[in-house]
Amino acid sequence: MAAGENLALLTDLYQLTMAQSYFRERKLGLATFSLFIRSYPLNRGYFVAAGLRDVIEYLESFSFDAAALDHLSTLDLFTEDFLHFLSGLSFTGDVWALPEGRVFFTDEPILEVTAPIIEAQIVETIIINQINLQTLIATKAARCVHAAAGRAVVDFALRRTHGADAGIKVARDSFIAGFAGTSNVAAAHAYGLPAVGTMAHSYIEAFDDEEAAFRSFITAHPGPVTLLVDTYDTLAGTRVAARVLRDCGLAEGCAVRLDSGNLGALAVNVRRILDGHGLPEVRIVASGGLDEYEIDRLVRLRAPIDSFAVGTHYGVSADAPYLDAAYKLVQYDGRPMMKLSRGKATAPGAKQVFRAPGFEDTVALREEPVPSGRRGLLTTVMEQGRRTAVPPPVSRIRDHLRAQIAELPPEARWIVDPLPPAATRSDLLRELTEASRHRLERRFLG
Amino acid sequence: MAAGENLALLTDLYQLTMAQSYFRERKLGLATFSLFIRSYPLNRGYFVAAGLRDVIEYLESFSFDAAALDHLSTLDLFTEDFLHFLSGLSFTGDVWALPEGRVFFTDEPILEVTAPIIEAQIVETIIINQINLQTLIATKAARCVHAAAGRAVVDFALRRTHGADAGIKVARDSFIAGFAGTSNVAAAHAYGLPAVGTMAHSYIEAFDDEEAAFRSFITAHPGPVTLLVDTYDTLAGTRVAARVLRDCGLAEGCAVRLDSGNLGALAVNVRRILDGHGLPEVRIVASGGLDEYEIDRLVRLRAPIDSFAVGTHYGVSADAPYLDAAYKLVQYDGRPMMKLSRGKATAPGAKQVFRAPGFEDTVALREEPVPSGRRGLLTTVMEQGRRTAVPPPVSRIRDHLRAQIAELPPEARWIVDPLPPAATRSDLLRELTEASRHRLERRFLG
Repeated sequence: MAAGENLALLTDLYQLTMAQSYFRERKLGLATFSLFIRSYPLNRGYFVAAGLRDVIEYLESFSFDAAALDHLSTLDLFTEDFLHFLSGLSFTGDVWALPEGRVFFTDEPILEVTAPIIEAQIVETIIINQINLQTLIATKAARCVHAAAGRAVVDFALRRTHGADAGIKVARDSFIAGFAGTSNVAAAHAYGLPAVGTMAHSYIEAFDDEEAAFRSFITAHPGPVTLLVDTYDTLAGTRVAARVLRDCGLAEGCAVRLDSGNLGALAVNVRRILDGHGLPEVRIVASGGLDEYEIDRLVRLRAPIDSFAVGTHYGVSADAPYLDAAYKLVQYDGRPMMKLSRGKATAPGAKQVFRAPGFEDTVALREEPVPSGRRGLLTTVMEQGRRTAVPPPVSRIRDHLRAQIAELPPEARWIVDPLPPAATRSDLLRELTEASRHRLERRFLG
Repeated sequence: MAAGENLALLTDLYQLTMAQSYFRERKLGLATFSLFIRSYPLNRGYFVAAGLRDVIEYLESFSFDAAALDHLSTLDLFTEDFLHFLSGLSFTGDVWALPEGRVFFTDEPILEVTAPIIEAQIVETIIINQINLQTLIATKAARCVHAAAGRAVVDFALRRTHGADAGIKVARDSFIAGFAGTSNVAAAHAYGLPAVGTMAHSYIEAFDDEEAAFRSFITAHPGPVTLLVDTYDTLAGTRVAARVLRDCGLAEGCAVRLDSGNLGALAVNVRRILDGHGLPEVRIVASGGLDEYEIDRLVRLRAPIDSFAVGTHYGVSADAPYLDAAYKLVQYDGRPMMKLSRGKATAPGAKQVFRAPGFEDTVALREEPVPSGRRGLLTTVMEQGRRTAVPPPVSRIRDHLRAQIAELPPEARWIVDPLPPAATRSDLLRELTEASRHRLERRFLG
């Protein structure tokens, strides 16, 4: 997840100072924390769950090594006996979660941890960190795939993601959401994703002219190639590419890439040139500042673009670079808990989401029986600190997600101003929320 | 930089397919690539260079291990002799760069690599990735520090950064830019930064009431504490905190934290309560959705807030989550190179930036002598693949940056609608640019 460091130190300091206070008070009761998203970012009508795989890996390996404990002891904040306690700490809790690739909505739990409060608290930071990033990107990726309306989308984001770790996660989330491949070789290796790529302008420039560059590339790479045609002049470059492809007897599986200018208008002219050279099979790849909005615009224009490569705007989810995700205490030592803070109030109790066909969701208490015709979306993924199932392969997650997106109400998929399905709360959850609110208000606001 | 993977695979596939073509053509000449930012994102009037330390570490360790080569051989794209060539490849080039913490402007080179073209190309992806993220965040952080006008700013971003790697880098960049500390324990450990923290709402909720929670925390942590007062009602919580602090004889170094509601108005009332309890030394920390815009607004209101904790909006640079950074071929085999693509044209040749006091910058060719009264900003940081200097400690980078920001023209520091200083190009650079443009246009557009 990050190089060289003991992962247990990847937390906020207050998790450890609070833990020392819990430890001193012998407050070792079971706490349940619920991770959910409070509101939709700009133009989102649904979310795609991702990041669970990394969370489980982190929780399974969670422990403080000697170097980590040494470091903590230098901070002059922690007592000997607490550090000794940390040295024996591992994650022993239960985790319920939405499987990766599940479509979900605001206020629905993505993941719930039940563990001794110290454990549940120290792991908060990385749980939010991983689910926030990956759900953000899987959701953005699903929007790109939807906008492309059947055309291929590929991930070129690594150079502009926030670090290398993010780049690897972005590539995986892209594939889950239906991308055709990634340029990221390390991610392709790590997750078995299709690696894709074309060529750079510097490559063309390093040769005497485009023709020499194209011919050299074809010689070095038998099989289909994608030639970059906009280094000097897009239409002139396309004519050169068409001539070279025809000379070499290449067409099927080959493409030209446009990376600048008015992509829609250029694609029309590039298509005409390729067809005029008897190369109707040669496809057009577009890149350069693309995201779901621009893909949607080009698709609506019927620009003859076969494949979209997304990078900068995509890989940081530039229009909405974070989710309003919260990990809140909902139960402690058997008592339901909630927060009253204005605009940040939470619902108490361990939860489940019941889904009926058509995405009619009800957020309920976990203890409630599943009503007929519905199913519970959260499943146990860890028991007593151990994973309960082998993670599914990315291709299965991807297939399952595709089917869900197809079933979403069309207005939830709109690229601009979508309308998410309305979720309801079960009677029992509403009653518990009201009762808890009254109890707290009587006590603290009265 | 990212766990477990061979770092050399952290690249775009096309870097390797282009490399195979160069290899086949025996195109092994020296190439110079220049990394620069083409335009200012929203409301930026300057940039702060960061990320060089990680780039140098990456370049020093760059090599393909057996597992990486095995993976590449499975892709059916690479020849035996090329893979053999990769197995012996390391980075043997020279690197000139701005030191970390240097203020710079658009179109000024941040870093220039001169190396055999294959090496210079494969390392592009991670060089852009690291400099983009860290310069982005160091710049955002400098804006937060400036907005706080002498009040402390601390980094609480780890849970919402794009992955754990980004969280660690963000913490370091924050400190370089003048933050007082970070909540990120791993980053504090890795870079020797002050670790800071308070307590969470869940902590308060886990006790019978706020008083019990505060007292327990104070008992577990002798010394100054920061008490979170907004779990139920901010002003009632402040009264409890004030009473507990007074009872315990605490004041100096202590604080209360507000994390929700109208922070400015609440701070006025919280200040009044603290002063009314004879606790003028107890400070007020504000958090919750803060960034430089909100800090600036609160400071202008003269809200009695002593310290700002920034997280979500800060750690992803939410208003501008990427830089328009480009790594372009400017020289190959002794010949100056440039790109003509519309809106993406580049200036040829290896460069230097001459700076006169008052940030009068001239972008020049590296071969030009430094004019008197000016100094060259880029220095050699690697020669023949080895670093030429020990990286300075973060505290020195931080001190140097503070002095530069203080000297910036005030309008370049404005939080909204800043005006960056105008940089000029030297006569020689302008002449070379024109000559190269004409040569290329005659050749490819004529």
